[in-house]
Amino acid sequence: MTKVIDFQTDPSKYRHWRLEYDGPVANLIMDVDETAGLFDGYELKLNSYDLGVDIELADIVQRMRFEHPEVKVVVMQSGKDKVFCAGANIRMLGGAAHSHKVNFCKFTNETRNTYEAAEADSGQKYIAAVKGACAGGGYELAIACNHIMLTDDSTSSVALPEVPLLAVLPGTGGLTRVTDKRKVRRDLADIFCSIEEGVKGRKAKDWRLVDEVIPNSKFDETVKERALEFAEASPKADVAEGVKLGLLDRTFGDDGSVTYSSVEVAVDRASRKATITIHGPDADAPGDMAAFQAQGDQAYMLRMARELDDAILHLRLNEMELGLMVFRTQGDPVLLAAHEAVLMNDADHWLANEVLRYWKRILKRIDVTSRSLVALVENGSCFAGILAEILFAVDRSYMMEGEFEGDNRPVATVTLTDANFGPFPMGNGLTRLQTRFLGEPESVATAEAQKGASLEAEEASELGLVTMILDDIDWEDEVRIFLEERASFSPDAMTGMEANLRFAGPETMETRIFGRLTAWQNWIFQRPNAVGADGALQSYGTGIRGKYNMERV
Amino acid sequence: MTKVIDFQTDPSKYRHWRLEYDGPVANLIMDVDETAGLFDGYELKLNSYDLGVDIELADIVQRMRFEHPEVKVVVMQSGKDKVFCAGANIRMLGGAAHSHKVNFCKFTNETRNTYEAAEADSGQKYIAAVKGACAGGGYELAIACNHIMLTDDSTSSVALPEVPLLAVLPGTGGLTRVTDKRKVRRDLADIFCSIEEGVKGRKAKDWRLVDEVIPNSKFDETVKERALEFAEASPKADVAEGVKLGLLDRTFGDDGSVTYSSVEVAVDRASRKATITIHGPDADAPGDMAAFQAQGDQAYMLRMARELDDAILHLRLNEMELGLMVFRTQGDPVLLAAHEAVLMNDADHWLANEVLRYWKRILKRIDVTSRSLVALVENGSCFAGILAEILFAVDRSYMMEGEFEGDNRPVATVTLTDANFGPFPMGNGLTRLQTRFLGEPESVATAEAQKGASLEAEEASELGLVTMILDDIDWEDEVRIFLEERASFSPDAMTGMEANLRFAGPETMETRIFGRLTAWQNWIFQRPNAVGADGALQSYGTGIRGKYNMERV
Repeated sequence: MTKVIDFQTDPSKYRHWRLEYDGPVANLIMDVDETAGLFDGYELKLNSYDLGVDIELADIVQRMRFEHPEVKVVVMQSGKDKVFCAGANIRMLGGAAHSHKVNFCKFTNETRNTYEAAEADSGQKYIAAVKGACAGGGYELAIACNHIMLTDDSTSSVALPEVPLLAVLPGTGGLTRVTDKRKVRRDLADIFCSIEEGVKGRKAKDWRLVDEVIPNSKFDETVKERALEFAEASPKADVAEGVKLGLLDRTFGDDGSVTYSSVEVAVDRASRKATITIHGPDADAPGDMAAFQAQGDQAYMLRMARELDDAILHLRLNEMELGLMVFRTQGDPVLLAAHEAVLMNDADHWLANEVLRYWKRILKRIDVTSRSLVALVENGSCFAGILAEILFAVDRSYMMEGEFEGDNRPVATVTLTDANFGPFPMGNGLTRLQTRFLGEPESVATAEAQKGASLEAEEASELGLVTMILDDIDWEDEVRIFLEERASFSPDAMTGMEANLRFAGPETMETRIFGRLTAWQNWIFQRPNAVGADGALQSYGTGIRGKYNMERV
Repeated sequence: MTKVIDFQTDPSKYRHWRLEYDGPVANLIMDVDETAGLFDGYELKLNSYDLGVDIELADIVQRMRFEHPEVKVVVMQSGKDKVFCAGANIRMLGGAAHSHKVNFCKFTNETRNTYEAAEADSGQKYIAAVKGACAGGGYELAIACNHIMLTDDSTSSVALPEVPLLAVLPGTGGLTRVTDKRKVRRDLADIFCSIEEGVKGRKAKDWRLVDEVIPNSKFDETVKERALEFAEASPKADVAEGVKLGLLDRTFGDDGSVTYSSVEVAVDRASRKATITIHGPDADAPGDMAAFQAQGDQAYMLRMARELDDAILHLRLNEMELGLMVFRTQGDPVLLAAHEAVLMNDADHWLANEVLRYWKRILKRIDVTSRSLVALVENGSCFAGILAEILFAVDRSYMMEGEFEGDNRPVATVTLTDANFGPFPMGNGLTRLQTRFLGEPESVATAEAQKGASLEAEEASELGLVTMILDDIDWEDEVRIFLEERASFSPDAMTGMEANLRFAGPETMETRIFGRLTAWQNWIFQRPNAVGADGALQSYGTGIRGKYNMERV
């Protein structure tokens, strides 16, 4: 599995999903083309999915928000007879490298979270209309919807058969959503997760696994009714026209670099380092959200967001040996803050809301990216507001202090704005500054009092906003030594350490999915009982049951 | 590492710790005998520890509560020059099986939690008086104390060098306590956890890693002062005389069985099943806590607790292929409730408090035991109060319903008491019934209204207290089929599933340690970068650095 995976797609290229728009209701039909797997060696039978299927789904969910703001209810359903979705493709999982499996699950988790959050963030509610078998990753798709309707017939059921069948976990949020979202009683959850055949009909509702069970004869009609009902009850404002998301301006270099209009990715393989440079805006901010909308996907704050998002996904799946992600910015912080202010000052405008929520998702994507994240606050940089938030997402930040010989760029500053004090909570529900200052909560208020100021190194350090400030004499050596040292550590220990240090404070369903559930799944994905030659993933479909080492750990 | 590990010890056998009692202050001196490792193949240099050292520590912490209730402050210190504690022994870790490593860490975690909780539960405060190097598991010992004092000299420092040195995590709560207890700013935590040499002096206090830094010349004196100060401020009542914990009445059978005075462990290796039968009391309850104290360690509620605790630890470390733990009880539930009531009715009595808190720890130990846990509520059983709590700790419970042919024992019942509604919170801070009924909180009150009633199968099932009720026709087959099926599943998938399903609801430092941190550590403990032939644990001490696969997962 070494081919380059492209996270950019658009409706003209979809192989696995169909969309039918009907005013405020969109019908999202899963109809996987079994011959169109992302890699060779497996067929996507029974509406099973691989990363390619999920890339399309992520694209759909994203476009639903930007291109179809008129949609208030999305009804997920199957285009196949007798099967809703059979979950992640087992042969694909059996053949995939550990790193691919883990990153595949992370991306699918992010997508599930996104359509779950669409209701809270944007008033777009997802309904799962389940006919046929809905198993494993299929039920994980359904359970990420905020309303599950199940038809009451002999072939329709919901199931999480991973444990008995495959000796792995329902790792795309399944176990966590069963306990924490659906709040299924734990012994019933235990039964549900250890039977292959799943649960049907009335019992599925009694156990809280679905919201409604409907006779087959009335199913389609009831689903339509419910969708319209939810659409009418939706608090989402009517918006006539969306914003089209066009192709990214993106060029891949032979050396691994990627150049977008406002983002550059430089690759240094020997140092195992990817440097992401974000360029500030080069034109004045639009006068208001109407002007912003007129610019469409070329409006700087949206264009740059899409580029950054694509860059991170590209590095995650295609450049696994680049263990360091270094964030740099260059540009005018005042101009950047002006662009941001257009959104923040009219945050209830549907498009401002969508762009800000998109930034929330991107910042969370950075949080859960298992690379060592570093920010360099250099002269000429524009770490203001949303981009300053990156300083609080990374593991460490280094900032230039004072005059640098031969460097005539403006001196390095950090600028806090309203963006740093609320609109971009982490998965734990706190802002990044609240999380940073858990031990000294008064420091959040002290920092907030400096909103709008151009904070130079000493001030930023005094406020606890950067890890280290370094002058012309020390900068180059100190930064180099740190990066070299970091690149020499065991990547696994880094992954584990960062996953623990980044999310202090409260836990939420989201942090439990990426922390607890993912960690246990990754452990299982290393164990011979699952992935060994005689393990369950290899044995699946052969009729021979996996051979297990029965020692309990 | 196949020898049988005995969790029972007493002061006459200690090799690694010394205790000096001085009124309300106990000095706990770590002075590890490097020749007295639990297994061959390593020396416990530099106050490093293995499970044997920790078994003694757990015994000390336990006896401190029961035998030395006069103690209000425990001062942990080192008996060696220039080193406080170097952490878990690396050669031991390098040579240990995965399952031993994981269970070793779990037990050490439980012990750390216990002395951390001693202050809240019993008014016994632990101080770490750190002189010399305090690294890795050594700092994890210190950070589990509720006050850390560090001497300010050139050799004394605190450090978590696991990541740079060993490519594993500080997995005995270290990472979690750094972020959640000490609330160290995450970028500073990142630095702290990636430097071998640790942090000294003033910086250690500024970074919140220790509470006090004291000039070496005044250190011993200041530690004494502080200990007396804390002792004076302690809310702990003065108690002149404790209760001696004598040897357990315990016999090991050739077939793997273990027989205690009130607990029996039967082993069925072919079925991978250990059956733990708890016998109810056979004498009247003591009249009051004075009478209870006069019975000392032979008082039923304490004696049975110690036996159950020992049985669980024995099964965990010595019987790893027994993936099923089946809990049974036999006895008179009314008599059992009377014994419990002596404690509950005088819960502020120091000894009642200690026995109840001990039960809290045992129930939590059951919660985190990674075996499939089942309870069988048979005729003649006594699942009342504290023992009923086991029903809500296990993964599933099966209860006999109605008449059973040829069975003249009293019909199966469940009895709830005050014990089920408060005194035994899980690690997540909720009672087991609150956790069970997260999705239907009103069911807790409905159950509480039935306190004291002998609930037969149908009632217990209606109240949601048991998983399944089965009559004479179905009981034997259904239970057998379930147990056989469970025993056939991949033990790893069971471990991961149970770790996720058991702890719904809020997370605490404790659930994060056993959930998130442990899972990541276990993952790393499987990865070649740590445990492979060229991995860091094998390379340690050879002068050759581990060879890492640099792919990021």
